[in-house]
Formats: sequence, C-alpha cells, structure tokens
Amino acid sequence: MYTIGLDFGTLSGRAVLVDARNGDEVAESVFDYPHGVMDSELPNGLSLPPDWALQHPGDYLDVFAHAVPAALRGSGVDPADVKGIAIDFTASSPMPTTSDGTPLCFLPEFRDEPHAYIKLWKHHAAQRQADQINETARQMGEKWLPRYGGKISSEWFFSKLLQILQERPDIYAEMDRFIEAADWVIWQLTGVETRNACTAGYKAMVQDGKFPSADYFKTLDPAFENVVDEKVGREFAELGSKAGELRPEMAAMMGLPAGVAVAVANVDAHVTAPAVKATDPGVMVMVMGTSTCHIMSGTELGEVEGMCGVVLGGIIPGLYGYEAGQSAVGDIFAWYVENGVPPEYHAAARGAGLNLHEYLEREAAKQKVGEHGLIALDWWNGNRSTLVDVDLTGMMLGMSLATRAPDIYRALIEATAFGTREIIEAFEAQGVEVRELVAAGGLPEKNALLRQIYADVTGRTFKLSGSAQAPALGSAMHAAVAAGIYPDIQAAAEKMGKLKDDVVSPIAENQAIYDRLYAEYRTLYDYFGRGANDVMKRLKAIKHEALG
Amino acid sequence: MYTIGLDFGTLSGRAVLVDARNGDEVAESVFDYPHGVMDSELPNGLSLPPDWALQHPGDYLDVFAHAVPAALRGSGVDPADVKGIAIDFTASSPMPTTSDGTPLCFLPEFRDEPHAYIKLWKHHAAQRQADQINETARQMGEKWLPRYGGKISSEWFFSKLLQILQERPDIYAEMDRFIEAADWVIWQLTGVETRNACTAGYKAMVQDGKFPSADYFKTLDPAFENVVDEKVGREFAELGSKAGELRPEMAAMMGLPAGVAVAVANVDAHVTAPAVKATDPGVMVMVMGTSTCHIMSGTELGEVEGMCGVVLGGIIPGLYGYEAGQSAVGDIFAWYVENGVPPEYHAAARGAGLNLHEYLEREAAKQKVGEHGLIALDWWNGNRSTLVDVDLTGMMLGMSLATRAPDIYRALIEATAFGTREIIEAFEAQGVEVRELVAAGGLPEKNALLRQIYADVTGRTFKLSGSAQAPALGSAMHAAVAAGIYPDIQAAAEKMGKLKDDVVSPIAENQAIYDRLYAEYRTLYDYFGRGANDVMKRLKAIKHEALG
Repeated sequence: MYTIGLDFGTLSGRAVLVDARNGDEVAESVFDYPHGVMDSELPNGLSLPPDWALQHPGDYLDVFAHAVPAALRGSGVDPADVKGIAIDFTASSPMPTTSDGTPLCFLPEFRDEPHAYIKLWKHHAAQRQADQINETARQMGEKWLPRYGGKISSEWFFSKLLQILQERPDIYAEMDRFIEAADWVIWQLTGVETRNACTAGYKAMVQDGKFPSADYFKTLDPAFENVVDEKVGREFAELGSKAGELRPEMAAMMGLPAGVAVAVANVDAHVTAPAVKATDPGVMVMVMGTSTCHIMSGTELGEVEGMCGVVLGGIIPGLYGYEAGQSAVGDIFAWYVENGVPPEYHAAARGAGLNLHEYLEREAAKQKVGEHGLIALDWWNGNRSTLVDVDLTGMMLGMSLATRAPDIYRALIEATAFGTREIIEAFEAQGVEVRELVAAGGLPEKNALLRQIYADVTGRTFKLSGSAQAPALGSAMHAAVAAGIYPDIQAAAEKMGKLKDDVVSPIAENQAIYDRLYAEYRTLYDYFGRGANDVMKRLKAIKHEALG
Repeated sequence: MYTIGLDFGTLSGRAVLVDARNGDEVAESVFDYPHGVMDSELPNGLSLPPDWALQHPGDYLDVFAHAVPAALRGSGVDPADVKGIAIDFTASSPMPTTSDGTPLCFLPEFRDEPHAYIKLWKHHAAQRQADQINETARQMGEKWLPRYGGKISSEWFFSKLLQILQERPDIYAEMDRFIEAADWVIWQLTGVETRNACTAGYKAMVQDGKFPSADYFKTLDPAFENVVDEKVGREFAELGSKAGELRPEMAAMMGLPAGVAVAVANVDAHVTAPAVKATDPGVMVMVMGTSTCHIMSGTELGEVEGMCGVVLGGIIPGLYGYEAGQSAVGDIFAWYVENGVPPEYHAAARGAGLNLHEYLEREAAKQKVGEHGLIALDWWNGNRSTLVDVDLTGMMLGMSLATRAPDIYRALIEATAFGTREIIEAFEAQGVEVRELVAAGGLPEKNALLRQIYADVTGRTFKLSGSAQAPALGSAMHAAVAAGIYPDIQAAAEKMGKLKDDVVSPIAENQAIYDRLYAEYRTLYDYFGRGANDVMKRLKAIKHEALG
C-alpha cells in the first residue's frame, strides 16, 4: 500500500511516493513552476508594482501532470496500490475564483489583471491593509489578536483580500470565492471545495471555529461586513480527514485510478511535525532553512508572547498547535559567507576540499565555548518571535584586532540558537512546556556544530529528521490517514515518521558557559528590542530619509 | 642655513635635512635598527618573557652614523651650513646607565641581562607595577593623578623603573641613572645630561616642575623613596632650548662641523604640532596611523576626562600641552580589509587598479550620510580616551541581509570620527576650546572620504600636514630655535611649518545627519563604556577562562 505526498514550495512542486506501511520513500520527482514567482511582470509583460509577488495556478496542475507520473514511472509500484494522495503548501497564498472554482486569471477578461492571480505568501504589497487590520483590532479589543502574538501579517489572507477590495472593488465584486491555493488544488482534485483548518487558523484568524465578527469586518470597510459569507465560507475540514476522491480526469492525468482518497490540504511547515514523529505535546519541530519555523503541539492554550499563532487542531487534531519563527537563520550564515569572509579562507576551504560553510564550521568547532569573546543579536532580517518587529537589525560586539572569520561564523550560529532559546522561554513562561527539539531541513543536517550548539544553548536534546523531504512525507502520512490505512495521524507517525539515530545531547560544561552568554544575549535583546534604546529603528528611519 | 631633524621610530630612524628659512625638506634618509624590536629574545638568544619589548641603544648611534651622512651626501648642501640638530623619539623608552651615560647593557657583565636594555614604549610587562602606582596614588589622593586622566600606563617611566627594582634589585642598585632614550641620545651628542620637559611631564608624572613626593615613592617601596635624587634628577630643559653643542667625535661620525647647536629632545607626536603650524591654543593635531594621538595647546589648565596627560610647556613653552588618543584607528580599517572583505571586492579593486582601501573608500564615498544604516563603537583595541579602558571591545549594529563591505568600511571610519568628537567634547566640557583639526600621517593623506567625514562629524575644518615627515620637520624646527635662527618655536612654525592648501570644511547638510548619528553613538558609548552594561568585560573574562 502506497500513498503520495506533494509538497508545493515557492519555486517548484515535489511528489514523493511512500510505502504506507513503513514510510519508505520509494520514488520522487520535482517539477519547476513554468511561471515561477511573478514579482516584476505578468505573463503578458505588464509591470507589477514593488512588493508584489504572484503565482499562476496552472503551474500547480502541471506539477500533478508531470511530477506524479514521473515518480510512479521508475518506482515499479502498481498505480492500483496507491491508496491516498495529500498535499502541503506555502501559506497564505490565496486567489479569487468563480463559484465553480475557476481562477479569475483563467478568464480572458481578467488575464491582464494582477489582482486576479494568486498572491504568493511573500507578496508584501498589502502592508497598509495589515496595519489597518491590526489597528482596528487593537481599538476594538479583539480577543483573537493575542493568539497571533498581537500582530497580523501583510502576508496573510484578509490583508490580501482587503487589498483587492480597496484597490479593485470591481474584481472584489466579481469573485465568488477567495481561497487558499492549497485548498483550491484539493478542489481541483476532488471537485469538492474544502478549507483546511490549519491555513484558516494560522492565516485567516479563525479561532475556536469562528472568524472575527461581521462588526469587526464592517469597521474595516462597510463593503467587507459579510466577507466571510460572501467570499469564504464557515466550514473547516480537520487535518488528515478525507476531502473527497480523485476525479476521473485528474486521475487519468496522473496515471492513477479514479477514487483514490484525497486528504484535506496542509501547510508545509506544520505537516513536517508528524514526519519527524513530533505528534506529542512538548516536541518542538524546527524547520530550518533560510529562516526557521517552530512548530509544536501543546495540551494547554497559552498566549505566548510574539508567537505567529496558536490554533486548536492546527497541527494535530485535538491539540493546540503553536507556531513561532526566526526570520533569518541560514540567510545570516549565507550573508556572512558571501559578504564577510576574506580570500584566504576561500582558498583554504578549496584546499581542504570543503565548501566555505563546511570549512568555517570545522574551524569554529575547534573552539571552546566563549573563546571568541563575541555575542550577536540575530536580527539581520528583523525579529519574528518574540518581538514581532521587522525594523530590528543585526548587532555584534566583542570584536578585537584578533577576531577572525571562524569566530564570527560561530557567534552567528550561537546568536540564532539564543534566539530559539528566547522563543522556548516565552513558551514556558506561559506554561507551555518544550521538552526537546527536532529539526528538519538541509541546514541542521549539514552542520554538526550547529546541532551541538543548539543542544548546549537550549539544554535540550536535538534530534534530526530521518527524511530529507519531511513535508512531502508528512503529506503522504495525511494521505494514509485519509485513506483509512491508519486511524489517526499519531498512528501514522508511529509507523511512517522518521528520525535519524544520531541524537545530540547537551554537554553540561558547555551549557554552564552558554547560560552566562545567554544572560548577556537576553540583556541586549531586551535593551535593543523592547524600547530602552530604539537606535535600530532610528537608524532605519535615517537610512530611508537618506535614500529619499 | 640648514638644520637636521631626526625622528626615532619603533623600527627605524629618519634624518631630514631642512632649509631653515622656509622648511623645505632638502634631503632625507632612513636607517633600520639592526636589532629592531627585541620582544622574543636578546641578541645572545636568551628568551624574553611575554609582554617584553626591548631595544638596543647602539642602534640609535648607528642612525646618526648612517642616516645623517646619507642625507647630506646627495643634497648639495655644505655641511658647514648646518646650524642645528634635534631629535624626537618614541616615549617612554627608558634605560639604566652608569654615571657617565654608559648603558648598562654595553657592559660585559650586564650584556645578558634583559633589565639592562631599553624598555621600549610598548614593553607591557610592568602592568603589575602600574596597577600599584595607580592604586597607591588613588589611596593617597595624589593631585597629579587627574592630570593623566586618572590612570598611569604600564608603558611609562616609573612603571618600568619599579619593575627593575622589584624584579632585579641588584641591577637597580647598580644603575646610576635611569633615562629616556631620547635624552640619552642628546647626552651622547653633547656630553651633557639633560631631561626634556615633554617626556618628563607626560611619562614621568612631573607636574608644575615637580615629581610626586618622596613619601609617595616610599609607599610604593621603601627602597624607592629617593628614586628621583638617586636615579633621575630634578632639572628639566624647556623644548626648543639648546642642550649643548655637537661633540667633535659625534660631529666627525656624521660629517658635520663640531659645535653645531643641539636642541633638547622631544616626543614624536608632540613635535608634530609646530610642523603643522599648530602652535596656537585650540588647534588639535591628530597624528593618525594605526592609532591616533591628539595633541593640543591651551591657555587654561583643564582636568579633561580620560586624557593621556596635560603638561605645562609640554608642546609649546608657556602653554598647557594636552594629549589624548584613540588606541586603534588605521588598525581597525586594516583589520577589516584583511579579515572582512570577500573576494569579489578584492577582484574589483584589482580591476580598477586600486588597493582595497582605495576601492572601498571610492565605493563608500558614493553613499549619502546615514544610507548604510550602521553604527559602530571603535573599541577594537580598547578605548584610550575618554574611558581609559583596555577591556572594551568593538561593536557594530544595524546590519541587514543587504549590508555590504563598503557600508561597513564607511561605518568604521565614522566610528573613529565619532570617537574623536567624543574627545573634543570632553575637552570643551572642561573649558578647553577645540577650534580646528590638523592631521598628519599617511592615513588622512590617502583618504579623502575620511577627511570629509571627520570635518562633518566634528563640525570643524580639517587641515592636512604639508609634510609627509612632520615629526622630523618639527625636530628640525626645534633645532632652528636652539641654533638661534628663530627666537621661539612659534616664529619657526610661522616660516617652516607646512599645511596643504586643501582645507576640508564641514558640509552643513551632512553635519545635521551626523549630529543625530553621533547622539546614537554617544548613548551606546555611555551604555557600554560607563558601567550600565559591562558585557564586553564579562565576555573578555569568559574568553580568558575558556583559553585557560
């Protein structure tokens, strides 16, 4: 028995064919979106304003048409043995459609309208609307606001929908539905419109099954009063439940039998949790790449400072699913390696047959904790949790004339580990226990020093995903639940989830020193991050003035 | 009429032959010390402990024997037209001698004794003695202590002499005189022992013509009670006065007539002032290289926070001579260029036919003030003035993923300019006016961006030395005064001093933005430098623990 998990990323979609008995990844295939990210122009050449980022929904259908048959082809698996299919997606990436699910951008009269396309998660042109959403919620004392760390993002569902209403009321009027690409894809597969509880909860302010009130939406804009009933809908499907069955035409396109079970959609970071067996409360999953997304389930509802969100059933049905994040992690190391390392280290790395990351890691690993004398604040791209402040910037201190590249590289890794500890402490301050760390992504897999530092800084064991394609594996597990192979996601995780054997434990001697360094980090974190000295914001203001 | 100025540096001595009518530098010659800096072993191979730095006095005589004839040789000047000779020296670089001025290290029985050699200015092995000197002075409420910013350095005269007493009382007992190399050289030239008022004032705690009391010295060590009368002497010669006349054997060695006037010695930084016409109160001379030394005369005595020293007649007879400093300036830029710039900039600089400093300066100069969004504390080698704290370290903040090398290079230049402004404000807070800046040294001469930034940050005009060998020129001017060619150093400076025509004035628009950035610098300076957050010291302590 097999299931297929599809992971829809920013630039491509990946299909993984999985043995549902044990989670073995039998075959996989990746397909790049033909239109990629449209952030400068539409397919017809029409220029887009700054901060826009669109996608073309046809590209997702192409992923089904190409990646699934390609994965099946070389696998030796009989398509009749494929029992379920599920997907995960970036979020929030919504689009307007007609009542039958046809994207407005597919209609000739809207093909040249930017607002008719998918607004990709990183479309940042709705900041004005996000500001209005936040300000109004604060003024009205909306109870859901603290569940999002006190701030709704410009990346989210209603910011983007309000942007359409305010900038193109005609397109707003024309759309029958405004729907996450994740859910639209499931609609295409099954013919049934569903809305997954995860995206709705984290990106569309659905709390305890309810949207904000009509009163609230009306205050945003009179025409927005009935937005939920007019454009969205109030039904949400639980994760792992069956959205429907594969329509014959979609089945034929993929080379699968019709009627295969299709699970409701999921979000890429969140679906990683079962893939790494993190279905119990207190296991913090860190999806680490350019940034880090922290995902964890808990039995209690805690209003954790500056988290991205908490949603009942947002990760595992029946548990509170928490999300937090660090806006730059791998990005900071990449920035440093590209912009701060002199030629002699490039040459030494080449001489050692290593890439520069590997070489700096090797050199930095020779140091004792505290030996470099440095400390940094990891805010090169602002702070997502716990401060939720995009205007914060990076800081490093302790430099002497003897400071060298491996010192700085190590201090930057440590800074991101301190940032994670700050998040953990924010959780525990609200009574939400964090027992251990499980990481997924290329960054922790490649960097043993990073794994040890995170364990030492947080004082928690650090485990590593057993799969390099954890989101797709997690989707395949939801497919297995939807197909009835397992009764619930916990049971699927038990059999199909994968962790590497190599568990990193904190070293007591290092922990003791990191406790002292973390105390310094925290003092600086509060000083620069909580208003005692807003120099970073003032420098940004001066910078913007200078750039006119 | 000509005079010769000799500048004795750390690694070599330079002779410049100058036309005394107008300051024209007719010829020059450099001679490297055969023994260089002895910081690992004596000439006989005997190992030296850490932090030691010695020199061999014979090397200075070699400079006279080689550099002076070499300069004369190609000049076309008749040696009979040379009317005076003067020198300047590093300080404090003292040595023990017999009563006739023979260095103990010249005697066979002391040749293998490290304590018999010159302790070069950067000999740092007398820190314990400096600590004792400071602690005792604080306890006894010594009035001279504030004249040195509250702290005597391990580099200075009595720290080094006390080290000999405590570590080798036999050598202490054996010496008849303990004398600055500067004054010893003049003794060799003239046969007359003199002590110049400048080194005595800045390095041997002579204030208002008096040493600290016998009581104070006795408290340091009973055997130290009469150190002044037994080993030093109480006579000080005014700068520009005549120490004596050239002895026939020294004259013959140099190819000069006997009887040429010899001026009393001077300190290299201080003698730069007349060379750049800075004989009036309120003209701050910045001798800029790896570090910056600030030299200025004033009519009033001010106890300026954290200055290196104030000495009546220490620069110009009759005026209070102030000294302050920044312990790393060019050193920070060199550190960055060597340790923080990626290969693409090295390649681009080569492609543009520039060295990396020039290339980064060119790129940084394209920016508007404040555009990079960065601010730094220039403490890569501690802070000499105004905080007098070697345990402070560098800090930078404002980094984003878009920060590039020219941004950082410019921010580092600005940080050193803010450091100079901090010193200026400390002077003015004590009523000591600073009207304009005059810089000497390769660093400001090469870097036009630096000159403009210093003018903009301080709001003062920035002038540049007209001579690349300002100290030697300044010595030649003192020689002219000693020879009676000019009545005083002011008159000599008027005719022989040199400034470049290019005067940099502050640009009002830049000044306004730098005022805001300086306010940020100052807040951080106080926060990290004055005890609100001693994180830098704690990180150093952790570092030292880690390194065992």
